[in-house]
Amino acid sequence: MGYHGEAKRFLESASVEVGDTVRIKKPDVTYEGMVLDRADDADDRHIVLKLRSGYNIGVEISDASIELLERGSAPKIELPPLEVTENPELPDISIISTGGTVASIIDYRTGAVHPAFTADDLLRANPELLDTANIRGRAVFNILSENMKPEYWVETARAVFREIRDGADGVVVAHGTDTMHYTSAALSFILKTPVPVVFTGAQRSSDRPSSDASLNIQCSVRAAASDIAEVTLCMHATMDDRTCHLHRGVRARKMHTSRRDTFRSINSLPLAEVSPHEIRVIDGNYRERSSEEPEIMDRIEERVAFIKSYPGIQPEIIEWYLEDGYRGIVVEGTGLGHCPDSLIPVLEEAQSRGVPVAMTSQCLNGRVNMNVYSTGRRLLGAGVIPCGDMLPEVAYVKMCWVLGQTDDQYEVREMMMKNMAGELQDRSSIAYFRG
Amino acid sequence: MGYHGEAKRFLESASVEVGDTVRIKKPDVTYEGMVLDRADDADDRHIVLKLRSGYNIGVEISDASIELLERGSAPKIELPPLEVTENPELPDISIISTGGTVASIIDYRTGAVHPAFTADDLLRANPELLDTANIRGRAVFNILSENMKPEYWVETARAVFREIRDGADGVVVAHGTDTMHYTSAALSFILKTPVPVVFTGAQRSSDRPSSDASLNIQCSVRAAASDIAEVTLCMHATMDDRTCHLHRGVRARKMHTSRRDTFRSINSLPLAEVSPHEIRVIDGNYRERSSEEPEIMDRIEERVAFIKSYPGIQPEIIEWYLEDGYRGIVVEGTGLGHCPDSLIPVLEEAQSRGVPVAMTSQCLNGRVNMNVYSTGRRLLGAGVIPCGDMLPEVAYVKMCWVLGQTDDQYEVREMMMKNMAGELQDRSSIAYFRG
Repeated sequence: MGYHGEAKRFLESASVEVGDTVRIKKPDVTYEGMVLDRADDADDRHIVLKLRSGYNIGVEISDASIELLERGSAPKIELPPLEVTENPELPDISIISTGGTVASIIDYRTGAVHPAFTADDLLRANPELLDTANIRGRAVFNILSENMKPEYWVETARAVFREIRDGADGVVVAHGTDTMHYTSAALSFILKTPVPVVFTGAQRSSDRPSSDASLNIQCSVRAAASDIAEVTLCMHATMDDRTCHLHRGVRARKMHTSRRDTFRSINSLPLAEVSPHEIRVIDGNYRERSSEEPEIMDRIEERVAFIKSYPGIQPEIIEWYLEDGYRGIVVEGTGLGHCPDSLIPVLEEAQSRGVPVAMTSQCLNGRVNMNVYSTGRRLLGAGVIPCGDMLPEVAYVKMCWVLGQTDDQYEVREMMMKNMAGELQDRSSIAYFRG
Repeated sequence: MGYHGEAKRFLESASVEVGDTVRIKKPDVTYEGMVLDRADDADDRHIVLKLRSGYNIGVEISDASIELLERGSAPKIELPPLEVTENPELPDISIISTGGTVASIIDYRTGAVHPAFTADDLLRANPELLDTANIRGRAVFNILSENMKPEYWVETARAVFREIRDGADGVVVAHGTDTMHYTSAALSFILKTPVPVVFTGAQRSSDRPSSDASLNIQCSVRAAASDIAEVTLCMHATMDDRTCHLHRGVRARKMHTSRRDTFRSINSLPLAEVSPHEIRVIDGNYRERSSEEPEIMDRIEERVAFIKSYPGIQPEIIEWYLEDGYRGIVVEGTGLGHCPDSLIPVLEEAQSRGVPVAMTSQCLNGRVNMNVYSTGRRLLGAGVIPCGDMLPEVAYVKMCWVLGQTDDQYEVREMMMKNMAGELQDRSSIAYFRG
């Protein structure tokens, strides 16, 4: 972690450490601020400062000199609350922060990134948003997205619902990228929204000059002001900092650990390409903005097992879930929706105990078809629910939600196999496979 | 399942059912054979016949008439063993059949496809292979690949080893596609081979006119006669029936449920593009054919858990694996290699009991980097082994193999983090992400 090469020597020349307040002089300009840490793979030509205004900036050091002003002991700069005048011509967009890199600061003790900013701070870092909309910011909670769980989906949905009920023309949800697609899928089922609900995040901390946070936030606010009244996910479309893709919340999946264009629509096209000033619709088949009241159906069953099938998986693991009182099982099977024959009896036992079992494919692309091979037919015979072209993660989220709505096994099956939010399509998806 | 539309009416006109032996007359030609079933999504313009010669053929019916010769009760046509003269100029290639669609027939009772052919039958259906090589065929076993398990990896490896030891210049392994990439990864670790070992399969049954089996087999034999002495996987490169990609066995993953070009190299390029008559090398950095003796290290630990992390996963499931005597755990984490904080204590407990835990990413593309965020750093602190850019499936297979080689926890860590067969590369993989 941290500075290396030129940048490290530059800091050492004045005995400066991360967290210290410094003055950096360049021929035309002088900066004062706190030195922030950088990630390992950053170049060695920049120092990142948090200015007293609250902005972060990367200062190129080739013709700069540095002076230590104050040792860094104060971990955080306190900022006054934002005071912004509303423009009645513009839509009212709420930004809800749940945590994640998009709302992160550097942890000065460990050098790692952890989430801490409130939604208010997002605005401070992106004042141009105020040209697009009146922005209200609110932090719901502040957790890393790997720690999200079903009860937080519900909390997030309720916060979004309140914003819409209170008159927001659109809602942006800032969220960590790791599990953003699980949460966007959850809200797709929990909420029926008459306005856009747009998830966004960042693959790189906003304390880094190469951060993708700013474009993602700007495009998300643009999408939240649009006519696309669905739960969507807005992130970089390419590695360039130019446009974002707006994905349906039930079709997106994080497909790269670090690239900015990590989110892809699977088995569908993105709904739109978005720049800070424009939306280009790709799939016109979306739910349009309306003046209907929002609805929320926020009962969730948390005890759903999500199991990846693999060579060597033992039926005992599924027995354990049944013994432990799990109420649903989603299998990420192989190929067209298969698992080893040895699992079939215990999956049959699950169904007979009233625990529904749904089948998806770890291929991700394409659709489950359990009529082709004998294993699939045996699974269908055992009552396993085929999930068509639904992503495994979405089927898991949907099962949690469906079991919150009904106890009736027949209804569970009906609901799992019925398209509710674009997660399940009859049309062939062969053409959507790029990679 | 089965015939529909025109084709169905055509059969019904003579009261013909699947399995019956018929005569179909066209203006220029007359066919006699058994009517085979077709899959749901087949067109309604063809009837598929198994001719008395053993070949299957799709007959276009627009100008045809049909006559019932015999009700189908005999489920299988017995064929005489192949007698082929060796050409001393050509390499000796062994084709080992493990089952799967590439070696499948139709099940006349249910209409579904199940594996039954021996490797000998592959040759019968692809006589042009004899222009490329002297072919020896052998069926090791006959199972659907969803039923593969670690002990079959070992059996397959031993069969391949015997063929090489007995003088084969290359080996093709016919395998079901569902778990082919798990088995190709396993043989990459188990075998040290001086000649090519090429896995192949089919996405569509060879009883269907649109089958991909023939091109895959031909290209695989070509690759097995090449200089690329690694364990590889050879399947369609595109949806066209023109070329195949030769993937490194530890880099391939099935990425579409039904497309012929379902296998993709992840975090690397394919090694080569292969046609029946030519190999175009893409990545020249392969192990070359040599006259060394093959080696086999075939001890495998079967009790390895492969767990996908998700919002709502409970630590109790990992406790269960520990109680049940599992000896290794591979986590398919989120993002850069994360899982919920709530799992960290039990993962720490696993390590302290001598059960190694390895971390991969469900993003598939990119690499695990657990230094960036606090969760990753806590996991590293708990002793979790980061798996770099290794695919989750490959890390699982490798853990099974590593635990078969050593009980020493330090050695396990060393071996997991050391590149052995191209599964782990230091170079950035950002460019390999197509999407």
